[in-house]
Amino acid sequence: MTTANNLLIQEKVEQAIEILNEKGVDCWLTFARETRVNNEPVLPLIYGHELTWQSALVIFRTGEAVALVGHYEMNTAERTGAYQVRGYHQSIREILRELLTEHDPKSIALNYSENDLVADGLSVGMYRLLKKHLEGTPYPDRFCSSDKIVTALRGRKTATEVERIREAIRVTEALYAQTFDWVQPGVTELEISDFMHELLLTQRLETAWDFEECPVVDAGPDSPLGHAAPIALAAKRGQILHFDFGIRLDDYSSDIQRVMYFLAEGEEAPPAAVQHGFNTVRDAVQAVVHAMKPGVMGHELDAVARRTITEAGYPEFLYATGHQLGRAAHDGGGVLGPAWDRYGDRPFQPVEIGQVYTVEPGLMVEGYGYIGLEEDVLVTANGAEFLTTPQRELIVK
Amino acid sequence: MTTANNLLIQEKVEQAIEILNEKGVDCWLTFARETRVNNEPVLPLIYGHELTWQSALVIFRTGEAVALVGHYEMNTAERTGAYQVRGYHQSIREILRELLTEHDPKSIALNYSENDLVADGLSVGMYRLLKKHLEGTPYPDRFCSSDKIVTALRGRKTATEVERIREAIRVTEALYAQTFDWVQPGVTELEISDFMHELLLTQRLETAWDFEECPVVDAGPDSPLGHAAPIALAAKRGQILHFDFGIRLDDYSSDIQRVMYFLAEGEEAPPAAVQHGFNTVRDAVQAVVHAMKPGVMGHELDAVARRTITEAGYPEFLYATGHQLGRAAHDGGGVLGPAWDRYGDRPFQPVEIGQVYTVEPGLMVEGYGYIGLEEDVLVTANGAEFLTTPQRELIVK
Repeated sequence: MTTANNLLIQEKVEQAIEILNEKGVDCWLTFARETRVNNEPVLPLIYGHELTWQSALVIFRTGEAVALVGHYEMNTAERTGAYQVRGYHQSIREILRELLTEHDPKSIALNYSENDLVADGLSVGMYRLLKKHLEGTPYPDRFCSSDKIVTALRGRKTATEVERIREAIRVTEALYAQTFDWVQPGVTELEISDFMHELLLTQRLETAWDFEECPVVDAGPDSPLGHAAPIALAAKRGQILHFDFGIRLDDYSSDIQRVMYFLAEGEEAPPAAVQHGFNTVRDAVQAVVHAMKPGVMGHELDAVARRTITEAGYPEFLYATGHQLGRAAHDGGGVLGPAWDRYGDRPFQPVEIGQVYTVEPGLMVEGYGYIGLEEDVLVTANGAEFLTTPQRELIVK
Repeated sequence: MTTANNLLIQEKVEQAIEILNEKGVDCWLTFARETRVNNEPVLPLIYGHELTWQSALVIFRTGEAVALVGHYEMNTAERTGAYQVRGYHQSIREILRELLTEHDPKSIALNYSENDLVADGLSVGMYRLLKKHLEGTPYPDRFCSSDKIVTALRGRKTATEVERIREAIRVTEALYAQTFDWVQPGVTELEISDFMHELLLTQRLETAWDFEECPVVDAGPDSPLGHAAPIALAAKRGQILHFDFGIRLDDYSSDIQRVMYFLAEGEEAPPAAVQHGFNTVRDAVQAVVHAMKPGVMGHELDAVARRTITEAGYPEFLYATGHQLGRAAHDGGGVLGPAWDRYGDRPFQPVEIGQVYTVEPGLMVEGYGYIGLEEDVLVTANGAEFLTTPQRELIVK
């Protein structure tokens, strides 16, 4: 496991050097401390450990990668096999100034970004400290945002990374299948959540987001929507039951929504309104995946889903069609979203080969409940490929 | 559990209002997004959940506490019972401007700090966004650091918080006792770590820091020191075996170091050098706890330990004598440390009632290994109280 992770770290540091060259940036500097308390979201990608004292991971486009760490973490840094390591006892200031002076980079990318939260790990306090450490040198004037570097590095999954996501999805689909077999009208959202949690605990699996809100379970039209914890509301005949659930396995996540319908007494098939809602969501997913290929903008793909939903007579959903998936369920970077203020410029990024997206349109069927499907999709050279087995029919019981 | 946590959140928000009044600050604004990926270390204290879209927790010294969150997280925010909640669909900008205009605070504390990492959760990107949202208002000119507020809030443990730490310590001491019974010369650091990990997994317990480096196990004089993962190095007769270990239970941590000595063939007691080293470390701990009371500066207490060690003829240790303990093993805020650059002004803060510190001096006994003890201590009205049962004698086998 440690060795496998070290290999992945070495691969990603190599990839970072390529990206620095592609983007024309001389140096990428990650400056962090006590990351157990105040995390730096790029560390799992390029280091694989926490950092305690003020530390710098400095990657140069010329190919050198240097870790400046507290002396007692030199060992850990060396074992990654990805960095030359220099330690310190009292202050990082001197070794940091020395390193930059040796290489004299013309541009130094730091982890700040208004748009990409994964590239926004540098805190205001650490930024101020960094400027103080480098006072009197030309380097503070050469700072720039690392967002393009981090976005590319995080988004473009290596084969190993895709394999880990596939495995998380495979396990999630198996948990879903057990749940669909077991669930009956009359059980509450909380009981369903408890059942799925028990499956997780037995297999020592982690949820992809907050345990208490994973799964989200929406029983019928009266369930509060969104990322809220399940409540003591029973699933009923004649209603929709909606799930949003994912796990994190070997550091990579799944994120999948599914829907069931419980036939009312005397019904032999779901009512037309429910079936129409399901078909619309399913078709919206297919339309997005069909339109997805490298170079298409996130907002264009969002519009495809949004149009399918509104043209079928439903109000537009109030969230993005999809987000990237990887280490986290919400993995940052480009989003399949509309041009709303809260998404910043994230919908205006082209989809790239190797990225993994969720596709998750939804709509409310009045009187029956919420229908949302969420599939996980890999962008390929010419299009996109489902990593999930997409839900093509309502699960009816 | 959720209810107990909500009560703790309500208590801490009330405490925050008192602290705002004590420090003369009108408003404390925590601005965060997607905290599963990029965490905000004050959230567990004042909210108890993650936040997804751009969100603001705004606490006023007049007693109001308002949460501005994405519409689908309003429910979660309301259930805390600690906030009035206002939601949004597309942008937080308008409701944020409205709220501040209604209250017109003269000072607005934000979570940035060069010294206290727990008060440094605001990222550079979020800081820039916040300034943009408030463009054209007087509020960006009223920003100040929240560090004094966060430090006080985090440091001063309520009775409930102390009780949780005591329980984490009690469980840790039981795990240590089982380990001391079991361990024998010839087992490796890795085997000892595996044994302790198995105890943890059986009881579904979490480590207080990285699983792979918790416990730290140092077998004899050749073990690499510091926070490094255990290796395939065997504990031997005639050598010291040193542990650093802690758990996190019900969100609060323990952090304890212990030492053993394996008698060499023919020895009936540890050699004088080892015993002298142990006594010195034990006495340094006692001297610190004896000197500890509200108002004493962290660096003064550090000097007590450092002097005890050096006056006994050992080189001074290259780290701080102690750190605060609470939700995290390294809990931020004032530190019992020397005036070294990397500790910033953290050693220059007075010890306060209700704070919990580790006390962990150490020294190397040439040819035998490292001796470090770490006790956890609560600051009381007139002095300090051990929360651990301090190690007063070498454990000899």
